[in-house]
Amino acid sequence: MKIDRDAPVGVFDSGVGGLTVAREIMRNLPSEKIVYFGDTARVPYGNKSKDTIIRYSRQIIRFLQEQQVKAIVIACNTASAFALDAVRDDLDIPVLGVIEPGAVVAARETRNKRVGVIGTIGTVGSGIHEDFLRQLDPEITVLGKACPLFVPLVEEGWLHDPVTFEVARRYLRELQEREIDTLILGCTHYPLLRSTIREVMGESVRLVNPAYETALELKRLLTEKDLLSTGKEEEEFPYRFYVSDLADKFKSFANSILPYDVEMTQKIDIEKY
Amino acid sequence: MKIDRDAPVGVFDSGVGGLTVAREIMRNLPSEKIVYFGDTARVPYGNKSKDTIIRYSRQIIRFLQEQQVKAIVIACNTASAFALDAVRDDLDIPVLGVIEPGAVVAARETRNKRVGVIGTIGTVGSGIHEDFLRQLDPEITVLGKACPLFVPLVEEGWLHDPVTFEVARRYLRELQEREIDTLILGCTHYPLLRSTIREVMGESVRLVNPAYETALELKRLLTEKDLLSTGKEEEEFPYRFYVSDLADKFKSFANSILPYDVEMTQKIDIEKY
Repeated sequence: MKIDRDAPVGVFDSGVGGLTVAREIMRNLPSEKIVYFGDTARVPYGNKSKDTIIRYSRQIIRFLQEQQVKAIVIACNTASAFALDAVRDDLDIPVLGVIEPGAVVAARETRNKRVGVIGTIGTVGSGIHEDFLRQLDPEITVLGKACPLFVPLVEEGWLHDPVTFEVARRYLRELQEREIDTLILGCTHYPLLRSTIREVMGESVRLVNPAYETALELKRLLTEKDLLSTGKEEEEFPYRFYVSDLADKFKSFANSILPYDVEMTQKIDIEKY
Repeated sequence: MKIDRDAPVGVFDSGVGGLTVAREIMRNLPSEKIVYFGDTARVPYGNKSKDTIIRYSRQIIRFLQEQQVKAIVIACNTASAFALDAVRDDLDIPVLGVIEPGAVVAARETRNKRVGVIGTIGTVGSGIHEDFLRQLDPEITVLGKACPLFVPLVEEGWLHDPVTFEVARRYLRELQEREIDTLILGCTHYPLLRSTIREVMGESVRLVNPAYETALELKRLLTEKDLLSTGKEEEEFPYRFYVSDLADKFKSFANSILPYDVEMTQKIDIEKY
């Protein structure tokens, strides 16, 4: 099959969090078109079984293929952990998740081999980052900390706020005491709290933003496969957004974080795919 | 059909929140046995469609009927709003929700006819409390405020905490300024923040706890139908707990809020019902 290099990249997440990944793709690959799907009707994925997540991911991928995407980014930690291997076998276009790119950078950057991972209860409990990091370097000690208040704080828009600072201080104290030198922001919402986390952790700790690393990895992959957009085909809506529920709420969140005015948001029935 | 008055009461919720209702039943109807079901695999209900909530509620009710309950309490605001009427038609045992008992008391207690309702984005957005209150008294003005950080704060166990106090102060300021004299705690988790909410709102505002009012309404209904337990049949486990996922996490939360040591928690496959 010949893949059209000017086709859009498909990006999906359980909800709005993956928009931080879409944002990094917009910044770092400005010629690429994007079709984003947020599974807002079935969010969160963190408390669902592996089989369910694979089924959901396959439905979404069928929808994205209908949109004729040239590559797929799984911009959700749970779906990356549970479904990436399964769906990779189904596809003849490139597909990547958000966990490996972050883990690779963290393993490369840590000096004292003590890496922290923050995320949802589900992600941290799954130990998925630890598995990747240990494969990359068995000497690395991984310290996980679930931060369940971070997502609702971001969704409230309290990004630079004394409450958020105090919550971050409490969550991160343990990781500071255990002397990590590298911290993976292991949830797609967390890059939006980057400056607060930076303030709490100080300049000496390297913060790894998997959204950014995933965009770079996508760039590398598209380059390698000769699939980078020519940028010649201009479209009125280079970025299109689809959700499974509550399109208006999604749109207002998207508009608050993207360097772009989100006009085109459409609700679709994902269960049909 | 003859209903066994010594059979247990069935109580269900999308997760752990409904335990506050179970707790009030334990306190106010100490002779009653309880079978509790928490749909922890499919939580939250707030972002799901009415059809989905009715289908879930019917599955859970089939499970509870298999446990031969004599009455059912829907201890979840979303399921009470969407499914109560539909399932009431299916059943020949008493069934009640948490919205009406709270609304009745609020309508009776308010002096200035300005009632506040706090809850999740879904509950407040649905306007369901407003509908009930207006039916009871068209002169009542209802002021709703979604408090999305309250549930994760409760689930973190930060019940008496400066962070929680500051969050409550911000959320409730608007309701104070608009001079409500009665406030419905319209989410099953919120009674656990009662003392913080009391501190913020002051003594002059009447706090309505629907969990407590629902337990009283259950008592009234069982008395009327001659279904109050005789208290003669002693059981080793008068309170039994079932969940659809993550039984251990449920158990630790339950143990933290119930006046009772939760030993018997079992995971069941609710999709089979």
